[in-house]
Amino acid sequence: MQPITTEIVSRTIIKRPADSHKGNYGRIMLIGGNQNFGGAIIMAATAATYSGAGLVTVATDPSNFTSLHARLPEAMVIDYHQTDTLLNLLAGMDVIVIGPGLGTDTGADQLLTAVLAAAHAPQRLVIDGSALTLLAQQARPLPDTDIVVTPHQMEWQRLSGIAIKEQTPTANHDAQQRLGVTAVVKAHRTTVYTDERVWFNPGGTPAMATGGMGDTLAGMIGGFVSQFHDFTDAVLSAVYLHSAIADDLAATRYVVLPHQISTRIPTYMHRFSQIERP
Amino acid sequence: MQPITTEIVSRTIIKRPADSHKGNYGRIMLIGGNQNFGGAIIMAATAATYSGAGLVTVATDPSNFTSLHARLPEAMVIDYHQTDTLLNLLAGMDVIVIGPGLGTDTGADQLLTAVLAAAHAPQRLVIDGSALTLLAQQARPLPDTDIVVTPHQMEWQRLSGIAIKEQTPTANHDAQQRLGVTAVVKAHRTTVYTDERVWFNPGGTPAMATGGMGDTLAGMIGGFVSQFHDFTDAVLSAVYLHSAIADDLAATRYVVLPHQISTRIPTYMHRFSQIERP
Amino acid sequence: MQPITTEIVSRTIIKRPADSHKGNYGRIMLIGGNQNFGGAIIMAATAATYSGAGLVTVATDPSNFTSLHARLPEAMVIDYHQTDTLLNLLAGMDVIVIGPGLGTDTGADQLLTAVLAAAHAPQRLVIDGSALTLLAQQARPLPDTDIVVTPHQMEWQRLSGIAIKEQTPTANHDAQQRLGVTAVVKAHRTTVYTDERVWFNPGGTPAMATGGMGDTLAGMIGGFVSQFHDFTDAVLSAVYLHSAIADDLAATRYVVLPHQISTRIPTYMHRFSQIERP
Amino acid sequence: MQPITTEIVSRTIIKRPADSHKGNYGRIMLIGGNQNFGGAIIMAATAATYSGAGLVTVATDPSNFTSLHARLPEAMVIDYHQTDTLLNLLAGMDVIVIGPGLGTDTGADQLLTAVLAAAHAPQRLVIDGSALTLLAQQARPLPDTDIVVTPHQMEWQRLSGIAIKEQTPTANHDAQQRLGVTAVVKAHRTTVYTDERVWFNPGGTPAMATGGMGDTLAGMIGGFVSQFHDFTDAVLSAVYLHSAIADDLAATRYVVLPHQISTRIPTYMHRFSQIERP
Repeated sequence: MQPITTEIVSRTIIKRPADSHKGNYGRIMLIGGNQNFGGAIIMAATAATYSGAGLVTVATDPSNFTSLHARLPEAMVIDYHQTDTLLNLLAGMDVIVIGPGLGTDTGADQLLTAVLAAAHAPQRLVIDGSALTLLAQQARPLPDTDIVVTPHQMEWQRLSGIAIKEQTPTANHDAQQRLGVTAVVKAHRTTVYTDERVWFNPGGTPAMATGGMGDTLAGMIGGFVSQFHDFTDAVLSAVYLHSAIADDLAATRYVVLPHQISTRIPTYMHRFSQIERP
Repeated sequence: MQPITTEIVSRTIIKRPADSHKGNYGRIMLIGGNQNFGGAIIMAATAATYSGAGLVTVATDPSNFTSLHARLPEAMVIDYHQTDTLLNLLAGMDVIVIGPGLGTDTGADQLLTAVLAAAHAPQRLVIDGSALTLLAQQARPLPDTDIVVTPHQMEWQRLSGIAIKEQTPTANHDAQQRLGVTAVVKAHRTTVYTDERVWFNPGGTPAMATGGMGDTLAGMIGGFVSQFHDFTDAVLSAVYLHSAIADDLAATRYVVLPHQISTRIPTYMHRFSQIERP
Repeated sequence: MQPITTEIVSRTIIKRPADSHKGNYGRIMLIGGNQNFGGAIIMAATAATYSGAGLVTVATDPSNFTSLHARLPEAMVIDYHQTDTLLNLLAGMDVIVIGPGLGTDTGADQLLTAVLAAAHAPQRLVIDGSALTLLAQQARPLPDTDIVVTPHQMEWQRLSGIAIKEQTPTANHDAQQRLGVTAVVKAHRTTVYTDERVWFNPGGTPAMATGGMGDTLAGMIGGFVSQFHDFTDAVLSAVYLHSAIADDLAATRYVVLPHQISTRIPTYMHRFSQIERP
Repeated sequence: MQPITTEIVSRTIIKRPADSHKGNYGRIMLIGGNQNFGGAIIMAATAATYSGAGLVTVATDPSNFTSLHARLPEAMVIDYHQTDTLLNLLAGMDVIVIGPGLGTDTGADQLLTAVLAAAHAPQRLVIDGSALTLLAQQARPLPDTDIVVTPHQMEWQRLSGIAIKEQTPTANHDAQQRLGVTAVVKAHRTTVYTDERVWFNPGGTPAMATGGMGDTLAGMIGGFVSQFHDFTDAVLSAVYLHSAIADDLAATRYVVLPHQISTRIPTYMHRFSQIERP
């Protein structure tokens, strides 16, 4: 196991070229948020936007449009029941985040199947939350492209078949190799499994033990892979920064709320972008 | 009568163990908020979330979903008219807060009855606001578990039968013994009655004399009993901190608004968590 | 003409007695906000709440409930089309503010008539915005109680029959005597007319020349007359403080937005409450 | 090409005369925001309001009313499907901004046609976003009054027929002369074309490369031309300030969000208003 280092983060978050526009930073669609879990997709979209994704579209239950816009007018919305429209838009996306607050009913299941069937390289996928539960219930072919899954330990148990107690780095890595996707296993010390290596995140605080933290991480990863070329480095950098911000906030707070992390992403990214590389 | 002391608060709000997750800090359901009093359940849920409850679900009228999410995406929502779904979810909860903005119509009355019938040890209950009025109108069996009621003086009069003028500590304690629940009687100097003792809260300011303060306290108590083991100490600590924050805010404000207290809870909790215990 | 002085404000905003509760600071209902002008009643209610009214109820079009609660969970709401419910609640109110964003259609007209017929001493009335236009179109008997009207110059022209150019203090005072209500005539230098005197407000800035300022003043006056005994002093203090806050904000801002004033009211009130009186 | 200078901005943003009211700073209607792009019109209206427009009305899909008011109670709203009401109100406007989030369906197309047919001197027009795409698809007569279009490079290609690679200042100026309207062509270095001259904006940062920046600029231009007499100077000043604020924010942020610019407009305007002119 290797730690995620500040060197990785600073080589990833580089100064933006002056002559660039929003198209250069990616079009991202976040899919999730049913009538009960709308907050999850709001938090994920907020994280993606503050992470610097160029254009953010949220496909969700229409009951979430107003609360989303009240918090984040920067995002566009579509009703995720309109599958044709969604798939049409999906074709133009660089990144797809599916799962936060999606739920596990039949509609969610069918939507996941449709999205996985439509997605294709070089689109990048972040699969989180309910989508992982659905995948665990019924496997389906994944597109041959960059994919990251972001389970917490229980979701990873469902997905990998490894009981929480037996989730050692070696067992997890074996499972990741079988699945063929990058895996971020969220825990006290989050570990990240790629085809080549096992990483651990040095940061993290129990002040983050509150609902919505995972949705925020999924959105951050989405925002990072939408603008940074190296997929693994982008995922690792998002994981690192998510907890680094929380650690700083926890120096004066017993509990850190997800939105407090998101609003601070641009400042932290700026700091890393200023580090001179040799 | 004994004062609630900082010693109680600091022995309650201890440093979180590094290896913990949101499940360790409790699942809480807050039930209330009809079509007229939706703000009450928003304020209660906000307080519970900032107090560090692990997972917050709000059962309310669907007309409140959007405003709740616009302020607090961290909470999940369910329509409290869907009694079966509500009771199913309720079974998995560690803490139930019922009452803020619930109203007193027939539907509210039936919901209270159903929730009280379904709740059971070791679930903990906070009964507040309209739910106390309903209980005063018609008593019903309470589950044999940790329960705290949070009436203001008029609600306490209805519930205990003791006129406001005659609400002496002794009379109140007698009534508490009859009721068999912890009682937080909110007043200029709030008093707390447990089976063993009578406590008074040293803090409080007339700058708190505004709508929603009680809802915020109920949510804080819910958040505290969801994560701290000793029920009485958790209740006392929430009562103490609620007014301690308000007192500090009132040093420069003629009026303190409920949400201003909630957003400061994590910082205050952090301070108490840093106090070394002998 | 006499200036409104800081002496008046500091004798009005006195320290709150320790042993007081929200009932001591008044129940206020704000009536207004149709489907097009919902923001007006939101801004008025915000000002009333931050001014320290004990309990705030907003009677408005139901399309405004969610946006109101998203900004101000402290307020309760009722649908102003439910006239019977509204009038029932009205009977328990200490203060009524009618007009911000009410509009001038038939429904608004009938509601104004119903409210004016139902209101009675010692309830206090603030009549603003659309309600003044409706009154100018068709006079109707006013209840025999403390009433203040808050027209801008054009509304005052409609109400008093005095053309803007001819709105001299003397002419305005004559009109006020005929109307029999306190009049706050909003202008570059706002003047206030009572049965005894003519006052002018020394503050004010063109940075306030933006929509919603009047709604905010109406809410502030409502909040002040709900808690301070002397009606004239309460009105004068609200007028003074509204522009005093704006003047301070304008020291660094070209434009001052209404909500920026409201959130600062508690701090300014606190300062005046600390001034020792001889 | 000439740079937009601070001299232009400081001669434009002059101290407001003390004896002025909201009517002096313009009535502005912003038209846009369909069911998918509601955030765009929220951001544009926010910018217009913070820029100091006297009275702001938003004509949009009713699904956007609540999120708009939750963020900006200062704005009034009308349903843009009610064409007669819209055109009636339009007649009283000083400035019309059309396009942010309008979409390009038949309804949007017809609305654009109706608005362009109804607008007339001395009303000023800002045409942005979807409205430019519609104009490119089908030309229609423009009213003989002050008009500014605000395309990004792709929209300018559609509108002018000049491919992005060939968008030289000379080619752009030729196209502007044909179109007969002021053109703000948004790019890494934004250029502005008037009948007389070609300007370039010295500021701008890749931190602005995120959705909603253009909507915010359109709203700012609307707010500036609603209160400042010289049309070209008002447009140039808005362009300059929009990126000057972003540049300052980008000194510590990797990404700048549109609403972060809007809330800072009043402070920046104040600074320029304080510069003594010789």
